[in-house]
Amino acid sequence: MTITRWKCTVEYDGTPYSGWQKQENASSVQQVVEEAIQAFCGQDIRIQGAGRTDAGVHAKGQVFHFDLDYGERTISGFALSKAINAHMLDHPVSVVKAEEVDDEFHARFSATNKLYTYRILNRRTPPALDVKRVWHVKVPCDADLMAEGAKYLLGKHDFTTFRASVCQAKNPIRTLDRIEVEALPYDEYGGQEIRIHAEARAFLHHQIRNFAGTLVYVGIGKWKPIDVKTALEAKNREAGGPTAPSYGLSLMHIDYP
Amino acid sequence: MTITRWKCTVEYDGTPYSGWQKQENASSVQQVVEEAIQAFCGQDIRIQGAGRTDAGVHAKGQVFHFDLDYGERTISGFALSKAINAHMLDHPVSVVKAEEVDDEFHARFSATNKLYTYRILNRRTPPALDVKRVWHVKVPCDADLMAEGAKYLLGKHDFTTFRASVCQAKNPIRTLDRIEVEALPYDEYGGQEIRIHAEARAFLHHQIRNFAGTLVYVGIGKWKPIDVKTALEAKNREAGGPTAPSYGLSLMHIDYP
Repeated sequence: MTITRWKCTVEYDGTPYSGWQKQENASSVQQVVEEAIQAFCGQDIRIQGAGRTDAGVHAKGQVFHFDLDYGERTISGFALSKAINAHMLDHPVSVVKAEEVDDEFHARFSATNKLYTYRILNRRTPPALDVKRVWHVKVPCDADLMAEGAKYLLGKHDFTTFRASVCQAKNPIRTLDRIEVEALPYDEYGGQEIRIHAEARAFLHHQIRNFAGTLVYVGIGKWKPIDVKTALEAKNREAGGPTAPSYGLSLMHIDYP
Repeated sequence: MTITRWKCTVEYDGTPYSGWQKQENASSVQQVVEEAIQAFCGQDIRIQGAGRTDAGVHAKGQVFHFDLDYGERTISGFALSKAINAHMLDHPVSVVKAEEVDDEFHARFSATNKLYTYRILNRRTPPALDVKRVWHVKVPCDADLMAEGAKYLLGKHDFTTFRASVCQAKNPIRTLDRIEVEALPYDEYGGQEIRIHAEARAFLHHQIRNFAGTLVYVGIGKWKPIDVKTALEAKNREAGGPTAPSYGLSLMHIDYP
C-alpha cells in the first residue's frame, strides 16, 4: 500500500457555486472536485483547500491537497489532473497542475502567501463579455487617488474596519505585504479596468472586498485618500466603505516554501 | 419630424446566440437589440449591422445603424445607449457607444476595415475561466512557425481554400491587410495564449476560422509554414486546414472614414 499526498492547483469560475467550501443544499467547488476524484479512483476522498472563497469568487490558483492510495500503481501528475478533469467536463473547474508532495505538506497551513486580484470595470456602459467577472462602477474613478489611499493599509494592522461582522478569526490583526492599484485601458471609448492586487499570508473574511469598496469611495471622490487611514484606525466596520461584490475577486496565487 | 441616423457600437458574448443575423426559431443578437430599441421608443425599428457573425462568435466592436424619429425631442448618445441597455439587462449585449451620423452613413457599406482576433489557449489542461472564449489546443504550438505560415496569406489573393463551401460571396478574391500571431503567457504552468489578429476591408465566410485551423496545423508541426502557400494556391477548400471553432473568434473593431 502506497499513500501519496497530492498538491493540486485549480482554476474555477465561481459564478455557479456557493463558494469553495462544501455545504448542504448547495453546489460548491470542493464538492465538484471531490466527486470527480471519487469517480476516478472509487475511494471516498476528502480534499483540503488552502482557503475558502465566497460564492461567486473566482480562482486562477486555488490549491488543495489530498491523500491517494493507489496501491502498487503509479500515476503522473498530468495523468492525475487529466483523470480528475475528465469527470468535471460540465463544470467550469479545471485542475491545472498536480504534484506529489511529502506528507508534511498542508494546503492551508503550509501556505506562506496569497495573492488576490479585484477587477473593476470603470465606464458608463455595462460589460457584456465580462459579466460576473468585474465590478461595474459607472462613475469616473481616479486610480491614482485609490493607490494613495491604499498605502495606508500596507503593513501590520488591526483590520477590524475591513472584516465582515460574521468573520470567525480570533484575531483581527493581519500583515498586508502588498496592495497595488493598476489602471489598464479596457476599450476604445474611454473605459478603464482598475485592478487591486493584495498579498498577505492570510486575510480576514471579506477583507479585500471591503478594501475594494472603500478604495472606490476614494476613487470617485466621496472620500479623500487620508480617510482610509481614519477608517482603519477606527477599528469599526461601520467606519469602512461598502463591501464590493464577490464576482470582481479572484484568488490568483498561493506560495509555499 | 426629425429623423436621426444613429451609429452604435456594441459588445456581446456570442455564446447564447445563433449569431448576429436575425432568423426564425433562434435567438440572435440583432433581435435582442431590435427588441430593446422597440421597447424603448415604441417604434418598429430595423437595424443594419456591419457584418454577420457566426453563432458563438463574440464582439468588442460590432457596429450597426438605424434611423430614429424622435419627434421634436433630442437625446444624447449616452442617454440612447443607456435606454437601449436598460432593455437588455438579461442579455450579455451592451451598446458601448451611440453617435449621431449623417444619413449617408451605412454600417455595412461605409466600413473601410475590420479587425478580428482569434484566441487559442495552448496548454494541456482545459480552461475554466475562458470556456467558450478560447479554442483549447492541447498539443504544444509554435507561434513563430504560425507567424511564418501566416505571411503567405497577406495581400490580395483568391481565398477559395479558406472560404466555407456555403459562402455566398460572388468573388473569392480579398485583400488581407494584416495578419499577426501574438503569443502571451496565460498561466504560471507553461500555458500560453496565442492570438491571431486579421484585418481586411471584408472577409469571406469562415475565412478567419479557416486561417486559424490551418495555422494551428503549422504550429503543431503537422504542416510546414510553406504548406500554407501551397494550400492557398490550390484554390480548393479541401487543400486547407480545418475550421477552428467559432467561440475563439471576436470582431474587435471596424473603421469608418
